[in-house]
Amino acid sequence: MRALVFDGSQPRFTKTHPEPEPASGEALIRPLRMGICSTDLEICRGYMGFEGVLGHEFVGVVEQVNERRKSPLVGKRVVGRINCVCRKCDMCRGGLPEHCRDRTVLGIAGRDGCFADRFTLPAANLLEVPDSLDDDGAVFTEPLAAAYQILKQLHIEGRPFVTVLGDGRLGLLCAQVMTRLNATVRVVGKHPQKLALCEKWGVKHRLLEEVGLRADQDVVVDCTGSAQGLKVAMQMVRPRGRIVLKTTVAPGSSGTPGSPGTPGSEPVDLSPLVIHEIQLLGSRCGPFPDALAALVAEQVDVVSLISRRMKLADGVEALKAAKRKDVIKVLLEP
Amino acid sequence: MRALVFDGSQPRFTKTHPEPEPASGEALIRPLRMGICSTDLEICRGYMGFEGVLGHEFVGVVEQVNERRKSPLVGKRVVGRINCVCRKCDMCRGGLPEHCRDRTVLGIAGRDGCFADRFTLPAANLLEVPDSLDDDGAVFTEPLAAAYQILKQLHIEGRPFVTVLGDGRLGLLCAQVMTRLNATVRVVGKHPQKLALCEKWGVKHRLLEEVGLRADQDVVVDCTGSAQGLKVAMQMVRPRGRIVLKTTVAPGSSGTPGSPGTPGSEPVDLSPLVIHEIQLLGSRCGPFPDALAALVAEQVDVVSLISRRMKLADGVEALKAAKRKDVIKVLLEP
Repeated sequence: MRALVFDGSQPRFTKTHPEPEPASGEALIRPLRMGICSTDLEICRGYMGFEGVLGHEFVGVVEQVNERRKSPLVGKRVVGRINCVCRKCDMCRGGLPEHCRDRTVLGIAGRDGCFADRFTLPAANLLEVPDSLDDDGAVFTEPLAAAYQILKQLHIEGRPFVTVLGDGRLGLLCAQVMTRLNATVRVVGKHPQKLALCEKWGVKHRLLEEVGLRADQDVVVDCTGSAQGLKVAMQMVRPRGRIVLKTTVAPGSSGTPGSPGTPGSEPVDLSPLVIHEIQLLGSRCGPFPDALAALVAEQVDVVSLISRRMKLADGVEALKAAKRKDVIKVLLEP
Repeated sequence: MRALVFDGSQPRFTKTHPEPEPASGEALIRPLRMGICSTDLEICRGYMGFEGVLGHEFVGVVEQVNERRKSPLVGKRVVGRINCVCRKCDMCRGGLPEHCRDRTVLGIAGRDGCFADRFTLPAANLLEVPDSLDDDGAVFTEPLAAAYQILKQLHIEGRPFVTVLGDGRLGLLCAQVMTRLNATVRVVGKHPQKLALCEKWGVKHRLLEEVGLRADQDVVVDCTGSAQGLKVAMQMVRPRGRIVLKTTVAPGSSGTPGSPGTPGSEPVDLSPLVIHEIQLLGSRCGPFPDALAALVAEQVDVVSLISRRMKLADGVEALKAAKRKDVIKVLLEP
């Protein structure tokens, strides 16, 4: 079958990838729409040491489920949680399956991803997509869930000042989600044409160069995708404030100047965290039901984020396009 | 007067430092005992860009207070909070004076320290030391307060597994304080002779080389004083666990391999914070009343931490001694 594969040195498109075989309890899924995420780009720079089929954002149709009785999911349109878990380890049994010790992660760790004609996921990971939500919306469930994770982690009191740092794919989703808090939210980014979307949504926005680094924000959400984002966040957040860290970058990544692990680049001095007693909250995958419900209810505008639609066969080009500063979301179609 | 001064390139002892003059509301203090802290050593490597009289740990006698009416503190033995605050800024008025925007910090930022014949602090910063607590105990109030700060910041539920990482000055204080939680506490360090003190206190302890990095600790307190401590802490803490960060190191410090800002050294990759959704809590100065009360009640053994007593005039040598791996606390006497 066709697939977009990272071979350890570069991404390449192939027509001869082996067909996946669903293990017991797994579904075979045919993607209808796929999304390119910054994590895919970081993987192509060595992040996670992953090799195999790329991709973890999708909406697709279940072709088959490897179960004794016929699954009601067959033929249904689904989205799916990307962490495939053991249900036996201390994390799974302790209520944190997304942190399973033995997990594989779709297109990120130990499991081929969704940028292919077909791929597999445990049937238990899948959520049916209501008919009222189209493919363009549903494909955003995974990244939107990552944004909703922030609401699960932050406990807000009063009416805090919140800055979402970064006007990229994730930043613009986080910004829309954060406005659902009792908070004064602004997006700070580097790209006027991306920030213009905030105008449309009624979300405050500023260019980074115009913003004073005044250590006056109660919460800063780092969605920059650059290690230098944390440095700016530490200058923006007030003493005893909180930074939500969404950015992961590949160590030694040449594409993200100053990223951790880059020899010769400028590493980030963490002493402001101690001096100003800042809380740093690492934040990763999030609640699919919340994200799906928000999309169905049209509480979040994702269609405006779509910059390009490209074919899976042009996947290598699509990855390049997704790196461009003027591009927000690139979707792949079969 | 005599003073131990950092001149921007090295520490030196002088007999001709100008006598300090207490400003309005300030006390003139003659130190009886002073403690050398890792922060003093980092300052001598460029941390905080401080120049002036070193030192912020002391017990001393108030010689004079610049106030209209005679202060009851004159002639009293005192310890003192090191942050000198404006009482006007948003932090001061918001209940976080230790994070005052315009603060000076004794021997750390914008204010000469206590390694001298005399120094000044606002009278409002001083706490009288009860007669039952001797100078050797009282001089530990400041670092012990920094350890008690952790109890103010952590909200413990259940009976968590806590690792105090680092068996130095601060680690051994934190270890004793953490045992006051409903927690299973262990100290992990590199120095058998320092860890032997834990034996005396009934605190569990292990050598770092003997400990598996199993991501199974609920809380890790990083008291290593090295940027690599955070790397180890991230390997020890469980997913969704917490790291209390006490370590501050000078950017570009050659003495702490791998510290942030050291060109050519190995910077710390922070992506585990995101992947495992770890909380990082920066923690600095703490509550003096709690620390003083614990010392008076003999709840904490500080005397065992005293490795050397040296004279202020031998301060440069004392700073060197404090760097030695087999030395815990070096006290200075006038």
